[in-house]
Amino acid sequence: MNTRYLLIAVCFAVWSLDGLADDAPDDGQEYAVFSECRLLSGESIVPCRIGYRTYGTLNADKTNAILIPTWYTGTSAEHAFLVSPELIDPDRYFVIIVDALGNGVSSSPSNSEPQANGRFPEITIADMVNSQHRLLTDVLEIPSLHGIVGLSMGGMQAFEWAVRYPDFSGKTVAAIGSPRLPTFDIALWTTRNRLMALYRKCQCKEALEAMEGFGMTYLVPTKLEQDIGRKDAVSTIIARGKARFESISVGQTWDQQRQAEAMISHNIARDYDDELNQAAEHVKSEFLIIIGADDRVVTPQPSRDFAALIDAQLVVLDEDCGHGDPLCAPEEFSTLVRGFLGGP
Amino acid sequence: MNTRYLLIAVCFAVWSLDGLADDAPDDGQEYAVFSECRLLSGESIVPCRIGYRTYGTLNADKTNAILIPTWYTGTSAEHAFLVSPELIDPDRYFVIIVDALGNGVSSSPSNSEPQANGRFPEITIADMVNSQHRLLTDVLEIPSLHGIVGLSMGGMQAFEWAVRYPDFSGKTVAAIGSPRLPTFDIALWTTRNRLMALYRKCQCKEALEAMEGFGMTYLVPTKLEQDIGRKDAVSTIIARGKARFESISVGQTWDQQRQAEAMISHNIARDYDDELNQAAEHVKSEFLIIIGADDRVVTPQPSRDFAALIDAQLVVLDEDCGHGDPLCAPEEFSTLVRGFLGGP
Repeated sequence: MNTRYLLIAVCFAVWSLDGLADDAPDDGQEYAVFSECRLLSGESIVPCRIGYRTYGTLNADKTNAILIPTWYTGTSAEHAFLVSPELIDPDRYFVIIVDALGNGVSSSPSNSEPQANGRFPEITIADMVNSQHRLLTDVLEIPSLHGIVGLSMGGMQAFEWAVRYPDFSGKTVAAIGSPRLPTFDIALWTTRNRLMALYRKCQCKEALEAMEGFGMTYLVPTKLEQDIGRKDAVSTIIARGKARFESISVGQTWDQQRQAEAMISHNIARDYDDELNQAAEHVKSEFLIIIGADDRVVTPQPSRDFAALIDAQLVVLDEDCGHGDPLCAPEEFSTLVRGFLGGP
Repeated sequence: MNTRYLLIAVCFAVWSLDGLADDAPDDGQEYAVFSECRLLSGESIVPCRIGYRTYGTLNADKTNAILIPTWYTGTSAEHAFLVSPELIDPDRYFVIIVDALGNGVSSSPSNSEPQANGRFPEITIADMVNSQHRLLTDVLEIPSLHGIVGLSMGGMQAFEWAVRYPDFSGKTVAAIGSPRLPTFDIALWTTRNRLMALYRKCQCKEALEAMEGFGMTYLVPTKLEQDIGRKDAVSTIIARGKARFESISVGQTWDQQRQAEAMISHNIARDYDDELNQAAEHVKSEFLIIIGADDRVVTPQPSRDFAALIDAQLVVLDEDCGHGDPLCAPEEFSTLVRGFLGGP
């Protein structure tokens, strides 16, 4: 497992997974199609396709299902490495990896004919979760989950699940995720979205060079120095900008924008007067919250705060990898998650 | 002093000082004009104007002069608050604040007629220092300095001074500066420069919103949360983008670009096989190096490394203000600098 794990980890760390979507094998990809997905905003995605992959076998009691929602721009194919004997064992669990709305596999600006690109409505993390609940209950006929495991934007969905459907999952792992974004993270995603808009306007390399340079500043300086080094810094930005320029589609920029907007508006306390402690009162799931000590993409403080409110197990990784900490400590991360999931 | 100090500190922290240049009083502004400044690149600035301001009186022995080079986009007017009995006392020292090349007061893309905007040559931190050395020796007839005090890009100039003219200054304060930039900082300034280029191309608000959003991510998340708050994050970015849109000139974008390029290429070991320890052997000045523990604009590690090489006094501020730490701890900073400068 480890080679592939580390390979994915590196890709993940530089946030270039979106470029891999086309190369991913599509064997095993399944879809549920609804005539529409009604959104919190009142708008709808029409028709509404939800992609997913399953691993292992659902037991007779239907008590061994685990859901993995995807991170920003990530596809179910790119999350398949999480299904392994060391982490989430398909011999033990029935694992459903679900493609989050807007990821280019489920309904997205890049693949919707009637709602292409900017005509695709804005979505929320709650909309992603609602579509997944419907997939599980209406299509897969799974009435409850043993657990949910989400990383990054997947962790945001995990938090949302626990407040929106508190009886659905017995265990929740929210790693490098957030119950809602603080100013820093909102500024980060707003900046990235402006860069998408600039790219669409200019169709020029500068916008993608800015995106790549900006992406480097998500990383911890010491790690970045090891990985690139000052002499190669500018040339790396230019090379990455060029590679992105040659691979990115306008549809993908809209996919990324819609998912980033979902994170910007993410707030598990949205129905509770914006009070995290009120939202916390609704949580019934057992929680493992994992953060990266120097995460500069998803600021860990809101996770820390929420862990205190619900008295959750909080694990602080400090691998000098920032947002990539769980993937820089694959064995520790695997052991933690495997141990926490336990049963069924 | 403190009100003005804090006001400037706030402005400094959000990196919007460049917008203030026009409002600054120009009383006391002086200039030296050379027919040309020959640059390290072989190109020249023709003619070459160096702005400066002086405070206090040069003593008969000429042993009480202190030089303050300016930070990124900062003008001598905006540094005047450093001259005070609590920090650099004009009753004791003859203080020269010198406008760094490209700051819009000294020769810059925005004010050069023959070399306007993109025709203005690229400059280095060493070029800034060489122009200042010439100002001191040829115009002000000051053969040596009691001290140099630089913050941020001013601190980079201070390091450069100590290696390039090791006999010139007895004491050097390099605060939140760097002997050369690591990958993280190079990525930051490269990104910012791409945003300048995008703004010039589109003349649109998105580029400046991206600049403002990006600027927020220079700050420590906890501080940013206090200062702005998640509910106002997006509206603040939009408001700041609009204000910048209404005030920025194309010339200013080039000023900022040329100064950022100077930082990107900054390397006090450029003449010493890129080896900081070789550069360190040339240092004769006594050094006070001040860093911000969580500085996300000028990564503190290179300053730490260089402090160890030259056995300098290193002070780590940890005010949760990141790059703004010296200005968030004005009394500690003042006491440190005042004490270190001592004499004459």
